[in-house]
Parts: sequence; structure tokens; C-alpha cells
Amino acid sequence: MAVTKYPLGVNYDYPLILKKLLLTPLDYAPTQEIIFGGRRVYDYRGYVRRLNSLASGLNRLGVTRESMVAVLEYNSHRYLECLFAIPMMGATLHTINWRQSPEYVAYAIEHSQVDTIIINSTFLPQLEKIKSHLDGVKRIILIRDEGYDGQSLLKIDAEYEQIIADGFDSYDFPDLDENTVATLYYTAGTTARPKGVFFSHRQIVLHTMALGLSSGCFHTRSGFSAFDTYMPLTPLYHEHGWGMPYLATMVGARQVYPGRHNPHSALELIRDQKVTFSHCLPTMLHMMLSDPLVDEVDLSKLKIIVSGAKSAVNWLRTP
Amino acid sequence: MAVTKYPLGVNYDYPLILKKLLLTPLDYAPTQEIIFGGRRVYDYRGYVRRLNSLASGLNRLGVTRESMVAVLEYNSHRYLECLFAIPMMGATLHTINWRQSPEYVAYAIEHSQVDTIIINSTFLPQLEKIKSHLDGVKRIILIRDEGYDGQSLLKIDAEYEQIIADGFDSYDFPDLDENTVATLYYTAGTTARPKGVFFSHRQIVLHTMALGLSSGCFHTRSGFSAFDTYMPLTPLYHEHGWGMPYLATMVGARQVYPGRHNPHSALELIRDQKVTFSHCLPTMLHMMLSDPLVDEVDLSKLKIIVSGAKSAVNWLRTP
Repeated sequence: MAVTKYPLGVNYDYPLILKKLLLTPLDYAPTQEIIFGGRRVYDYRGYVRRLNSLASGLNRLGVTRESMVAVLEYNSHRYLECLFAIPMMGATLHTINWRQSPEYVAYAIEHSQVDTIIINSTFLPQLEKIKSHLDGVKRIILIRDEGYDGQSLLKIDAEYEQIIADGFDSYDFPDLDENTVATLYYTAGTTARPKGVFFSHRQIVLHTMALGLSSGCFHTRSGFSAFDTYMPLTPLYHEHGWGMPYLATMVGARQVYPGRHNPHSALELIRDQKVTFSHCLPTMLHMMLSDPLVDEVDLSKLKIIVSGAKSAVNWLRTP
Repeated sequence: MAVTKYPLGVNYDYPLILKKLLLTPLDYAPTQEIIFGGRRVYDYRGYVRRLNSLASGLNRLGVTRESMVAVLEYNSHRYLECLFAIPMMGATLHTINWRQSPEYVAYAIEHSQVDTIIINSTFLPQLEKIKSHLDGVKRIILIRDEGYDGQSLLKIDAEYEQIIADGFDSYDFPDLDENTVATLYYTAGTTARPKGVFFSHRQIVLHTMALGLSSGCFHTRSGFSAFDTYMPLTPLYHEHGWGMPYLATMVGARQVYPGRHNPHSALELIRDQKVTFSHCLPTMLHMMLSDPLVDEVDLSKLKIIVSGAKSAVNWLRTP
């Protein structure tokens, strides 16, 4: 009985790769906005154009499918760009936990053979401290932020915004094998040295689908949907902000990226941008609820996922 | 830079196969009930036990991973069993459209080299008409239904319920390659002869995830969730009832299978079983809304997907 063995997909084996997640927002929500701080930076069409410019600019600088690209940045629209564009090129995005010690960062960079670093200017002093560990790094790309005086002990090869300005509007993102490594993250090293964890394109796409499925459909549902305004408070280096930016992008939700923030400014953004969905560690929620501003912010529409530690129920207040 | 090429999944490459869809209902809803007609037949634990018994019984009769198993049956809990157990064995489930002409059924059976037929006794006369086309069929398994007099021109090899009664409570469903063919369906043949369409395990699992994702999370959301009571009115042979039974099972929803039904009895089930989610062709909805009983049934909680033809809006009434 040979009939059950007919090959499937002889025309096109649809791969589970990150670039496929961009098809739905372009279709359903091309004009939905993405916010950075209090400012609208672009809609989804503009966002995807930036991914193309970023990839073509990085490629011109020498970044290829073989590259290991470390990112040290706040929760910004630029981080959202890196989460897609770098793996979509076939390169590996190494999300660095910039809250860790210089020893940790040095180890993670050396051990994973990072050749490219994209870094917010605020974190330059941390990188300067481990200068002797950067021999394998071929290029450093700067995201210029407030307070940067233009001075650094390190050789800066390019500026992030300039790369995009010089890039092309289109880039031919390849149809990668879905098992290609997309991202890398090092554990905090509570036992001995930090350990690197890879995520493949297939793993991230399936995680994104499962997250969306459980959000709306399962007993455990969080209620997240395309109608929410989403803002990540968990750092994006931490397992891609628990995977939520991928889901928020796939469904074409309105997104707000806080950049450098504190509990007070996060509350301001929730109020001003009418944020309805977020996620963070209990400590952050605790600090927001302890801020005097909380009494002036309507939290009744806000859904928030808390994880990473147990919540102390006694300090949870109903709005 | 070899680090991006480290092989992933050296321990276990999680395959997208149908048996994985059963993990969540057993975890989240083991005691949720599945109804046939007005009667509770089992909960999800009992359902999965039946899948094991059915597979072991079929295997004892000679059904293997090479088998092509045709099913002619109403929308019953038994069809739900076939939708999972047969592909999970590695065999192919051929869902036959029993509303088609005998010529169509004969062609679909011969062309796909069916070796096993599972058939509701109501459809035996149709099969008797095409007896000369059944030379390749090695076994016929009967689902005894109302009105069967025990007489047939065909050799009946076993009865469905007896196979299950004689089967073992456990069956070692293999970890198939996710690209293994799971099901087969022949188009209605509006242009020339019917054409067979295969669905792989991977395709069905991804469709199930995408359906659930769109149900709860997307702009197009239907609002289906684990909290619904689900009843399929679209025939299950038609692209697995549009994929909904797989989703309803995966989320562990309460399910109601109507068996042989008409618009009137469907309305009775909606009323008595408090059905909140269904799907059908516009004709069926039209007939239900034209039935006098509709005035006594509260349809305010019912969500229904209509597809396959355009709805005539003028006959849609608000409850």
C-alpha cells in the first residue's frame, strides 16, 4: 500500500520561521501604531520597512548568517527590531542580561564567540570594564541615548540609526530551515558558570502560537488579544520578554515600548497610552502599587502577568 | 563561527503529531464530559481509554501503519475516536462523504486502495450497490445503528463496539514522523473526477493551533474557548468538521455529538445540552431558524460559524 507514503509539500514546505509571523499584522493591522516612550514611531508597515533597512545595513557592515550578534538595550522599539531582523537574516541574536556583573557579560560574550555588539550608550562603561575580553568582537554598533558625551574607550564602528538611514527598504530574508538557531540567552549562573540556551526559529514560532492559543482559548487564558495595547515591563533579554513581543507583533496589537523606565514612568505610560496588557516580576508590580501616582491611574482595564517569584497577596490592592 | 550550527533537540525532537493534542485535556479537563445525543458517554479519561482499546482491537484485526481506513458514520463520539486513534496508529483515515453518489464512493474507495471500512449500518445499502468495487477491501467493521435488521449482502468481519470491548486499555501509539499522512478526503468532483487531498499530522496540529489562536486572540476571533459546550453540525467527513473537533478536544471543552440528526433534533440538543458553540452550512442554520421550536430555545448564548456558502442576511433573526 504505497498511497500513504506519497510525499507531501512537493511545492512548498512551509517553514516555521520568524519572518512568517509578520504576514498577519501586515494583513490585519498595517496602520496600527507602535509607540516608544510617549511617541508614535511608526505603524506596522513602517516597522517592517525598518527591519529591511536594518538587515541590509548590518549586512553591509559584514553581519552574515554566521554572525553572533549581542544586544544590550532597554525595552525599546529598537529591541523589537533586533528580535526579528537579526534571526530573520539567519544570524543569531544573543540577548545579554545587562543587569549582571561584568564577569558574567564577559563570559557570555567570549563563550558564545560574539562578533557584533549592539549597545545602548548607557551601558558603554560596563563594556569598557571588560575591554580585554573583546578580542573576537569585530564591530560595535551604538544606540545613542540621553547622557552620552560622545567619549568611549572602545572603538565604535557605526551608529544604529545611521545604519538604518543608509540601509535599503528591502532585504531578501531567506527561507531558513526552521531548526536554525534564532536566539541565545545565558542563564544567570546561580549554579556555577552561566549556561547558554539556544532557541530555534521553530521553537519560537510554536511558542508564539501556543502562547496566543492559551491566551484566548484555554482554561488558563490571560485574555490577551489583538484589541489590547501591550507594553512589556519584563526585560526583553529575559527569554524575549517571555515571548510576548512576538505574539503582540503577530496579532498586530498596538504596542508601547517604555525604554529606560522606573515604576513611576511606567505608571505614566499606562495612564497616557491606555495600556491594557503588561507583564513583570512581582517586585516591579509592588513598586508601581507603592508609588503615589497609582491613586490617580485607572488600572481597571489593565491585565498583567506576574511571574518569576511568588506574589505577596497582602500588598495587592484592587483599584 | 560554528556555534550557531550546534544541533538542537538531541534529546527529543518534539513532533507535531495528533497524540500530543491529548496531553492538555488529560491535564486540564480529565473529568469533562463528552455527550452522544442526549447521553453522557464518558469523560476525557474514558475517551482516551477507548482510543487505546480501539487501536489495539483494530491492530488485532490486521490494521497496521500501512492501512487505509475508510469511515462512513454520522457525527458521533465514534467518529471523534476514529479522528484520533486511526492516524495515531500511523494508518490513514479516509473520511468518506456518504452524501455523494455510489459512483463517487466507489471511486474514492478504489482509487485510494482502501483495505478497511468502518461503516454505520444505515449506509450499508449504499455499499452493497458498489460491491463489485470492493475487491481490495480486506475487512468491514460495522457500527450497529437503529433500524438494522442484521442482514447484509456484504461480509461483516467485526462490530465496532465488540472490537473495543475485546481491546486492551493501553496501546503503544508510536512517535511518528510529523510529516506522516494522517487523513485523506476526496473533493466533491465538481470538475471531472474527485481528487484526493492528504493532510499530514503536522498540518492538522498546526491548523488546530492556528484555529485556537484565531478563536481567542485575533481580530477575527470567534470567541471559542475551553468554557464552551461544543457541538459539530458540519459533517465530520468534511475536512474533519472544519478542524473544530481537534481543537475542542485539545482544549478539553465539553462536547456534544448529535449522531443522526435533523434541524429539529439539533435545536433540542442545543436547548437540553446548553450548547454554546457550533458550525454549519447556511442551509442548516436556515432550517433551524425556520423550525417552530426555535421560538422556545434561548439562542442568546450560542455562537455559530457559518461557511461554505453566502448567508442570506434577510432570514437571520436576532433571538
